[in-house]
Amino acid sequence: MREAAEGIRQRFGFGGEVQKPVPLKEVTLRRARLKPPDGLGDLFSGDHYERVSHGLGKAYRDVVRGFRGEFENPPDLVAFPRHESEIETVLSWAEAEGAAVIPFGGGTSVVGGVEARLGERPVVTMDLRRLDRVLEVDAESLAARIQAGATGPRLEEQLREHGLTLRHFPQSFEYATLGGWIATRAGGHFATLLTHIDDLVESVRAITPRGNWESRRLPGSGAGPSPDRMLLGSEGILGAISEAWVRVRPRPQFKASAGVEFDDFIAAAAAVREISQSGLFPSNCRLLDASEAELTGAGDGRSDLLILGFESSHQPVDDWMEIALEIAEEHGGAPTPPPTGLKRPNSGRLRPDDSEGEDAVGAWRGAFLLAPYLRDTFVACGVLSETFETAITWDRLEEFHATVMETTRAAVAEVTGAPRDGAGAPRVSCRFTHVYPDGAAPYFTVLAPAVRGGEVEQWDEIKAAVSEALIEGGGTITHHHAVGRDHRPWYDRQRPAPFAAALRAAKAELDPAGILNPGVLIDPA
Amino acid sequence: MREAAEGIRQRFGFGGEVQKPVPLKEVTLRRARLKPPDGLGDLFSGDHYERVSHGLGKAYRDVVRGFRGEFENPPDLVAFPRHESEIETVLSWAEAEGAAVIPFGGGTSVVGGVEARLGERPVVTMDLRRLDRVLEVDAESLAARIQAGATGPRLEEQLREHGLTLRHFPQSFEYATLGGWIATRAGGHFATLLTHIDDLVESVRAITPRGNWESRRLPGSGAGPSPDRMLLGSEGILGAISEAWVRVRPRPQFKASAGVEFDDFIAAAAAVREISQSGLFPSNCRLLDASEAELTGAGDGRSDLLILGFESSHQPVDDWMEIALEIAEEHGGAPTPPPTGLKRPNSGRLRPDDSEGEDAVGAWRGAFLLAPYLRDTFVACGVLSETFETAITWDRLEEFHATVMETTRAAVAEVTGAPRDGAGAPRVSCRFTHVYPDGAAPYFTVLAPAVRGGEVEQWDEIKAAVSEALIEGGGTITHHHAVGRDHRPWYDRQRPAPFAAALRAAKAELDPAGILNPGVLIDPA
Repeated sequence: MREAAEGIRQRFGFGGEVQKPVPLKEVTLRRARLKPPDGLGDLFSGDHYERVSHGLGKAYRDVVRGFRGEFENPPDLVAFPRHESEIETVLSWAEAEGAAVIPFGGGTSVVGGVEARLGERPVVTMDLRRLDRVLEVDAESLAARIQAGATGPRLEEQLREHGLTLRHFPQSFEYATLGGWIATRAGGHFATLLTHIDDLVESVRAITPRGNWESRRLPGSGAGPSPDRMLLGSEGILGAISEAWVRVRPRPQFKASAGVEFDDFIAAAAAVREISQSGLFPSNCRLLDASEAELTGAGDGRSDLLILGFESSHQPVDDWMEIALEIAEEHGGAPTPPPTGLKRPNSGRLRPDDSEGEDAVGAWRGAFLLAPYLRDTFVACGVLSETFETAITWDRLEEFHATVMETTRAAVAEVTGAPRDGAGAPRVSCRFTHVYPDGAAPYFTVLAPAVRGGEVEQWDEIKAAVSEALIEGGGTITHHHAVGRDHRPWYDRQRPAPFAAALRAAKAELDPAGILNPGVLIDPA
Repeated sequence: MREAAEGIRQRFGFGGEVQKPVPLKEVTLRRARLKPPDGLGDLFSGDHYERVSHGLGKAYRDVVRGFRGEFENPPDLVAFPRHESEIETVLSWAEAEGAAVIPFGGGTSVVGGVEARLGERPVVTMDLRRLDRVLEVDAESLAARIQAGATGPRLEEQLREHGLTLRHFPQSFEYATLGGWIATRAGGHFATLLTHIDDLVESVRAITPRGNWESRRLPGSGAGPSPDRMLLGSEGILGAISEAWVRVRPRPQFKASAGVEFDDFIAAAAAVREISQSGLFPSNCRLLDASEAELTGAGDGRSDLLILGFESSHQPVDDWMEIALEIAEEHGGAPTPPPTGLKRPNSGRLRPDDSEGEDAVGAWRGAFLLAPYLRDTFVACGVLSETFETAITWDRLEEFHATVMETTRAAVAEVTGAPRDGAGAPRVSCRFTHVYPDGAAPYFTVLAPAVRGGEVEQWDEIKAAVSEALIEGGGTITHHHAVGRDHRPWYDRQRPAPFAAALRAAKAELDPAGILNPGVLIDPA
């Protein structure tokens, strides 16, 4: 850790002495206001460790508070249902007790989605980790029935026995669960096309306080508004997702990847726009600005970098890559050395952490996977780190990007007091995580010197300034991080008012006592 | 018409003398129970022609009743708003009068979606045809803001000025409107990928009795359940869609099409399955069984026919076609003569009714576009005609297809008393309209001798038997024809009960007087 801190100081010119987190046993929690009901002791736990580890998500402001032992809103009990009937038991018991229930997958929310900020109201966090099996595989339709509590590795491990994969690799992959992805509309690692969990869901089953919600397995349907699309993004307020049929696929047999450097971010964006409108649908099409490329070790900080990838389980993809590279070159891009390795079918290596070589593409991939784990280190070293993500149509991209970058830089300078340029200046960088024919999803990363003990306030101020810029500029408050509690003020301005009224009415119908994740998406009843 | 009747008799062995429809002026309507409010006479019409022409949809049972002059549920008034403010006027006036409002696009519903079966309750049909403009084009993001009442030809004509196209060509193309497509989740003519209007919608604006519902233009968003997806398929019960931003595209520059014959429908389905799972995403991938191929003039009735097509605005698609043809041949398919015309980029001909030559593909395309217009002829000639469509996962396809075909044949034989085989036997055929990695959308066509004067009862009995088979077999009651009033009994068994409760609550919140299209999707309050 000390070496990491020294490395950060040398590289960025900020960051301080390594501090130690408050040990688990020294954490003081509010006294529990609930006791496990008689005879259900093995379903519920009031254990100190469980209450602590379910008390916060994984936003920077959560990691900071956890580091300092500040668990303001721990659950009073944690439930670990093994069957749907035990989910029903938890819901009906909570309703009778007047307690709130927080459905909990991997706890990787970065938006306050799993922290019950409910004051006096008692809280049960319902952790679905025991529902972690692949229950059925339909190899003909390429679909699998998977329990909501299965983490990325757990479900991939079970699908691998059938030669199949979900190929849904968000940064939360290792800890997050299928149910959590569905509840929050997670984005996968493919940059285009069928990458959101929304598109991979064939049917969903959820337990609501007023009965089971289960849609039919259908490849497509036009029968009324999609019931699945109403659960997708519902963040636990309508019901607890227990399982889903999802679309899986054979492991890829052919791949091609390449990096392309640009001198100008907006020219690079134009190349990305044309590729996204070409009908080629690359599996990877990530544009990193020069600062982001340097940050991840994929560039030297002088050029913007476009990472292109294609993959297929059926046919070589080299020709598609050739066309995409031609488009990139027409917009001023230059393929990166070493040679990009076209014409190299490989034998379907599955996990995204498989080494892809020592080139720019491989460096980016490694950094992408490591990023979430660095947050603990940054907190220990006094570095403020945060990410913001959104989506915007192409016509507004240039101005939007400039405004958000400038707003972020100004807010960070103001809040941290750090110089805006030169040694010790905060880093604000941008990449595109997903691209569409009609726009892109820009993702901003901030690294800055933290004020020890004031990190949460710093974060809140920066968050508010940037969120304001996102919403004012016409973007979405979240492209794939969800709304939770932290994004509420801006989400409330974004969603159509009649839709919010409809959602409130739907929730009141299914959850009249308002026990399910109160405060997320809409106000508690 | 007499020639057509003779041709039908020779070809099918059934059909009778040509009858004449009841002329418009002889149609007797229930006395209107509403009068246009003072000063709004040009917004409303109580004209006989307007009441007749807005009284029924375009299902076979509607065409029959229209032919016989039986308009049981004509609107009392028809409104033609020119602006959103006039939509608001209609809604608030109707609410005050206790009248129902039926939002009306092209009136091409085949599921009773525009017929107000409301007994004593007065009804205003709100026809949006005057809202037919393309208001804005964003050529950079490839998106256009289009008013809900624009028909297919109207919106294509305006987009063409910008070199763009929506390329959404359902069979209803000529009369149906963008708003109708969104309200009913219309399926486009592409067989795979982004073909449903659901995927082409970037944002929607709707007028509800409790305010305007407008989502942001966003290429993607993870902020709560999608507001657009709640309007998509809402069939007018939550609000009247007034306009939408939709994703458009440049006109195609490269095309390839080919026909492949199979001896066995299930073997052909296996080829289609593999193609749909290959990641190639052909623009056309329609499988016609032998009877359907003969019916459309694309085959001789001995072989099943797969129609394959690829198109692109950016790059030649011949290689993709080669791979798809290889897959088809591996499953026993034989490309149809004349040579399929690969390696022939063409210069982006836009409309699907452009001649594609005299081969099997061209014949099918012509028949596809003509089909909806034949229904009037069939009614006049005493031929019962109807279509049923659904979707099912691949694992259940073979048994499902066999059961639905057999159920339909049995029901048609029972209802018509016609022989099951040989001359004069009813025709039951099947094609796939859309295919997905996890399943297909089979579409069934019935032609049979009608009992003059008893057509509606015949139709109702067949509809009930087939719908039962679709639902019992695990399919959807509709893949792209919507629910309306005709599909209600089966839809009610298909959708999750808590979802229906949520939808009812949402509607009660936005439309407390229950004025909007009562009886569609859910019961009137």
